[in-house]
Amino acid sequence: MTSERDAHALATTDFDLDLSEDQLRTRRNVKWSQYPADVLPAFVAEMDFAVAPPIQAALERVLRQQDYGYPKRDTERPEYTISESFAARMQRLYGWTIAAEEVQPLADLVQAKFAAITAFSDPGDGVIVQVPAYSPFFDAVETPGRVLKAMRMVDDGTGYVPDLDALRRLAPEASILTICNPHNPTGRAFTKDELLAMAQVAIEHDLVIVSDEIHSDLTYEPFKHIPIASLSPEIAARTVTINSPTKSFNIPGLRAAVMHFGTMALKERFFARVPRKLLGQVGVFGIEAANAAWREGTPWLLAVKAALADRRARVVAALAGEPGLKLYAPEATYMAWLDCSGLRLNVPAQQFFVEEAKVGFSGGSAFDPDAGSTFVRVNFATSAEILDRILDRTLTATRKLTTAGHES
Amino acid sequence: MTSERDAHALATTDFDLDLSEDQLRTRRNVKWSQYPADVLPAFVAEMDFAVAPPIQAALERVLRQQDYGYPKRDTERPEYTISESFAARMQRLYGWTIAAEEVQPLADLVQAKFAAITAFSDPGDGVIVQVPAYSPFFDAVETPGRVLKAMRMVDDGTGYVPDLDALRRLAPEASILTICNPHNPTGRAFTKDELLAMAQVAIEHDLVIVSDEIHSDLTYEPFKHIPIASLSPEIAARTVTINSPTKSFNIPGLRAAVMHFGTMALKERFFARVPRKLLGQVGVFGIEAANAAWREGTPWLLAVKAALADRRARVVAALAGEPGLKLYAPEATYMAWLDCSGLRLNVPAQQFFVEEAKVGFSGGSAFDPDAGSTFVRVNFATSAEILDRILDRTLTATRKLTTAGHES
Repeated sequence: MTSERDAHALATTDFDLDLSEDQLRTRRNVKWSQYPADVLPAFVAEMDFAVAPPIQAALERVLRQQDYGYPKRDTERPEYTISESFAARMQRLYGWTIAAEEVQPLADLVQAKFAAITAFSDPGDGVIVQVPAYSPFFDAVETPGRVLKAMRMVDDGTGYVPDLDALRRLAPEASILTICNPHNPTGRAFTKDELLAMAQVAIEHDLVIVSDEIHSDLTYEPFKHIPIASLSPEIAARTVTINSPTKSFNIPGLRAAVMHFGTMALKERFFARVPRKLLGQVGVFGIEAANAAWREGTPWLLAVKAALADRRARVVAALAGEPGLKLYAPEATYMAWLDCSGLRLNVPAQQFFVEEAKVGFSGGSAFDPDAGSTFVRVNFATSAEILDRILDRTLTATRKLTTAGHES
Repeated sequence: MTSERDAHALATTDFDLDLSEDQLRTRRNVKWSQYPADVLPAFVAEMDFAVAPPIQAALERVLRQQDYGYPKRDTERPEYTISESFAARMQRLYGWTIAAEEVQPLADLVQAKFAAITAFSDPGDGVIVQVPAYSPFFDAVETPGRVLKAMRMVDDGTGYVPDLDALRRLAPEASILTICNPHNPTGRAFTKDELLAMAQVAIEHDLVIVSDEIHSDLTYEPFKHIPIASLSPEIAARTVTINSPTKSFNIPGLRAAVMHFGTMALKERFFARVPRKLLGQVGVFGIEAANAAWREGTPWLLAVKAALADRRARVVAALAGEPGLKLYAPEATYMAWLDCSGLRLNVPAQQFFVEEAKVGFSGGSAFDPDAGSTFVRVNFATSAEILDRILDRTLTATRKLTTAGHES
């Protein structure tokens, strides 16, 4: 970890991360094309930062050499294996020793969730999901005919915590426990005790644990990410860990992810139900980007984490004490889960901010269909300049409302 | 088609397609890294040609703008939809009218085969495969527990033809007929009569037809590619057509393919068994490359077809009359299926050519485990200079043998 700290000293001054609004609007991505030009987007999980130089260099190499041949590096050239890069990274960051052969590359996280649920449950089985959750995960349960069992994250007055009583109640009806750690959208980095408590229920009821750890790189000091499978061999034996460089290195369009199976037996059980080639192969740009990110991306990542820590502080300073709003500082992720129920809006909070503030947050209902409409998810991974405009517009809109409220 | 002919006149002089052996060996692809440096590779289905300029320009645009965001163009921006590009191309090339909504993009052909077999058959069902066949297609049948039924391509003295009697015999035990049209590795572009005869059996026995048409762009005059689903609505209603720009535009590492369902009912039947998101999403480089290939790639493609026609003529001139070898000029594809049984080798033909000619062909056993060891598949998609060296080495090795044979 010393080398990461040394890199940090350099990193924070070495990268010009920010892109202008004009640069951002030339992209063909969702974030900068979904809303009209007068709306500042702060929704889909993309960061408005320049990509890591080692990734850009790796992609430029592929382009320059027109190296668009069969992407069989995984079997032909071990040194270019995503699986090896992931295993080495887990050892380095968490002292978690895993074998590359336990890792299966594939295109994306949502695909991995569908695949794990298809393999480890049958139609009609219960699948426990932490709610609020990234909305495609609801489909991942329900499309293959499984039954969604919602384990809510509850606000205990200090933050959002897993409802372990609900978990114990739901476990007898379920075959899979899915967790998202760190948790999107609440930003929780689960503690060792929380993870052990959830794992204990999984062990008692013979549940497979599917742990989405895609936000793990973006955990703020003093909080620590703990891969749940690293806690014990007994937990690992029933755990599929899903990760990807696409979130923390901001390359979702390049499609590269991994599933790690805690034992080869678990992996074999998976492939007995889901043929490997049904998953498709990762493209060359995805392979090269993943390897560059995981092997050479640390200095850039530390610079981004420093920038995000600054942005997070701005969000908390602006919104946390504001009448009508409630916010816990996220422990990880570049998302803030903003409770707007105090504004007593008669439209969904997301709609209010688009119309009244010209800011496009993610609507809470996508994460929590039952109780989310008074929440928005704030994506604060942008330049300080753009974020400050977003926060100013947000406060101007809410203050009109709260001031009007006081006056009436 | 007039515009294609006009483009042709320009195309054949406008492109510098050839890459030197030194350039090729810098790539990290399979073709130029699997064998030792003294072996000339002529196996895996990649062409040694510079990529089409519109594809390179599209990829450069993504790289320059770091446009690595969520690849949701398919839903967000209809003008960048692979499905639309494919539908427009089928209309233009074959007068085949299909709807973009009948098309599902995914990563690759092998994935598409697995998915179609998973969706349209049950464990224990028979799946008919034309043999010889691309070897991953055997896995695509057997890994999900289906039973492979081999319909052989038989040498009738004028070329390889589908064994329709075998098809009629196998059909009652099968639920799927897979065909490869044009056929890899024999290079046959099936005639309308052949396709109608196969389709008729499928209709009589209620088989789903899975038609791999990835080589269709590379059909030589006077032969014509006919999409089997274009022959009648009755055939379309039971046909999944699989295609991709990655073969004819030589970009297999970019991972982009399509499945076309002849009716929406067939598509719905598919997605009732295989959740859409289990397939993963196509990456941004794959999307941009596919659109550039299918919308702007014709001039380059015509230049490549002219070059391949020249290479094909060289292969036929060199090998067709040679003692111990038997070869029919391929009607499509950049492959020649070379029957070496006349050499009476006591090792597989592929091994003989690696050891004695320092040429790496694809071994025939991969395509036909029972009867393929005396065959090799010759990939002739390279520069005239490299191909001539391959052919010289091949003939030098076989002549040593046939001369020795005559002398003994």
